[in-house]
Amino acid sequence: MILKAKNHGLHFRPHFKTHQSAAIGEWFRDEGVKAITVSSVSMAEYFADHGWEDITIAFPLNLRELDEINRLATKIHLNLLLDSYQAASFLQHELKAEAGVFIEIDTGSKRSGIKASDLPGIEKIVETISQSSKTRFRGFLTHAGHTYQAKSKTEVLKIHEDSLNPMRSLKNHFAGLNAVISIGDTPACSLAEDFSGADEIRPGNFVFYDLMQADIGACSVEDVAVALACPVVASYPQRSEAVIYGGAIHLSKDFMKLPDGKISFGRIAKLNHLGWEVLPEGNEIVSISQEHGIAKLQAGFFNDFSTGGLLAVIPVHSCLTAQQQKHYHTFENDFKAMME
Amino acid sequence: MILKAKNHGLHFRPHFKTHQSAAIGEWFRDEGVKAITVSSVSMAEYFADHGWEDITIAFPLNLRELDEINRLATKIHLNLLLDSYQAASFLQHELKAEAGVFIEIDTGSKRSGIKASDLPGIEKIVETISQSSKTRFRGFLTHAGHTYQAKSKTEVLKIHEDSLNPMRSLKNHFAGLNAVISIGDTPACSLAEDFSGADEIRPGNFVFYDLMQADIGACSVEDVAVALACPVVASYPQRSEAVIYGGAIHLSKDFMKLPDGKISFGRIAKLNHLGWEVLPEGNEIVSISQEHGIAKLQAGFFNDFSTGGLLAVIPVHSCLTAQQQKHYHTFENDFKAMME
Repeated sequence: MILKAKNHGLHFRPHFKTHQSAAIGEWFRDEGVKAITVSSVSMAEYFADHGWEDITIAFPLNLRELDEINRLATKIHLNLLLDSYQAASFLQHELKAEAGVFIEIDTGSKRSGIKASDLPGIEKIVETISQSSKTRFRGFLTHAGHTYQAKSKTEVLKIHEDSLNPMRSLKNHFAGLNAVISIGDTPACSLAEDFSGADEIRPGNFVFYDLMQADIGACSVEDVAVALACPVVASYPQRSEAVIYGGAIHLSKDFMKLPDGKISFGRIAKLNHLGWEVLPEGNEIVSISQEHGIAKLQAGFFNDFSTGGLLAVIPVHSCLTAQQQKHYHTFENDFKAMME
Repeated sequence: MILKAKNHGLHFRPHFKTHQSAAIGEWFRDEGVKAITVSSVSMAEYFADHGWEDITIAFPLNLRELDEINRLATKIHLNLLLDSYQAASFLQHELKAEAGVFIEIDTGSKRSGIKASDLPGIEKIVETISQSSKTRFRGFLTHAGHTYQAKSKTEVLKIHEDSLNPMRSLKNHFAGLNAVISIGDTPACSLAEDFSGADEIRPGNFVFYDLMQADIGACSVEDVAVALACPVVASYPQRSEAVIYGGAIHLSKDFMKLPDGKISFGRIAKLNHLGWEVLPEGNEIVSISQEHGIAKLQAGFFNDFSTGGLLAVIPVHSCLTAQQQKHYHTFENDFKAMME
């Protein structure tokens, strides 16, 4: 991803919400990364405490965290995100130290952001930001999260294009302001080759990828770099199922539909001392409750797992699974440097 | 629930996995409760550290936690759960202090447990448990978790009856052993009036209830005793939607289907200084990502919530929501005594 950003002349500001780990952050720092994205004020505080000095909080400004934001703004280069005159005006009056401000644009994900077509609205926000000596207008930011619903590479690229177009228009419209155009969902950053008009990408999930990204076509299942190791606690040969200590509180309840219409909460993999071997589709976590998971195994694989052993699960959504674990093991050593 | 147990002559061993809080545990202790259920070894350790001396771990024995189990068994009255000869034999050889053992029976939930009809299998396990001076056979335990899929009171009662019948047969078959029959999912414990044959109930969710329990008919939405207070971070009058700081990592991704076929991740409520007012169906969290939630409000309620204020969410599944929060606020005071 670093190479891709470099090749397209893009500033690389990876999202750290997927791994939430200071230790993994160091791997990025070793590669020259200096600016990051996070999704909450507390995550910004955590990474600021670990030496990160240029952080964008890519989440709508939470007015209730003003004290924490003010503390951060005095300490690091902080960028905030907002999409309303009200929030801009609040910052204008309440911000104690200088912070950058991005205006969030809704390019179709229908979550947060102002529409690019609402030029009077955007102009009013830009004006408010510019009036204050504390808020520095940085540019326009979008998250085309609807690529996660895409079912093919073609569909991802179409959404990417449709999302980039209004951003380009804004760049032109506000040409005098030197606005940064910040984009970057993992599917588009993995698959697209046209980033013209964009200045910065912020992908995050690519650090691990997951089954959902593989399903979209952003990676292969073998690319997924994180798995949940679960103790096998019971085994039912008649059902060809094993029960694992690994449920909703470990994996999250995110699921995906398999081609046969059935639901999976994760693909089963076999651990070895160097890593893991992903089993073919059809070897899946078919049901989960709070702490139980039911692993459905195809005939040839049932005997690979026995009570007392470990079974690895490739997560449907690695961000949520990692967030629930709070620590990682590598095949070289353990580390627990993670946000809590 | 205490009264219900008393009226039916049942031993009350509430499940503490829903609240996971030593402080809430004290409310039970104040009412005379002395024995509890938990769903993991670490939860047993947490409550043992808070003075609970009679704990059943209602989760299949995890052979990989032998050291922790041995430490607990020397300290408190510990009951373990298993459903195989292999696990019983393991305990026979590895347990260092005395522990009670329940055999888990699968009465239809198809998660873990041996079938009541597999008498030779059960006899072999009972025999193995009885051979060791460390393992004390306590009885048969089932969790009829399939009541959670029930759509009406009648259906819950039918599942309860179908689940209790094989347990009664086991009690008769092993009459000489003084086996305790332990049952207890929240829907059945809330709705049933026939517990004949059972000796103990272990409901847990009833401490808070949630939307799912209300949907089943185990409670009303107004009975739900926990809500997630979420900051409103953006507001979109045209869509009649507000974006809240409250997503999958706060609520979990559990959802339910509304009568109109749409999906809800939680019902919206209005906080006041004494509690909250639940809004009518149709005021729902309609979409969530890692930290964002989208609150869809009916016309008359949109103006009750503004950016910077709080919106309360009645959770679909209170166990998972509480588990993710790690602390509670009451309307009298804050407390953080919760397992981490």
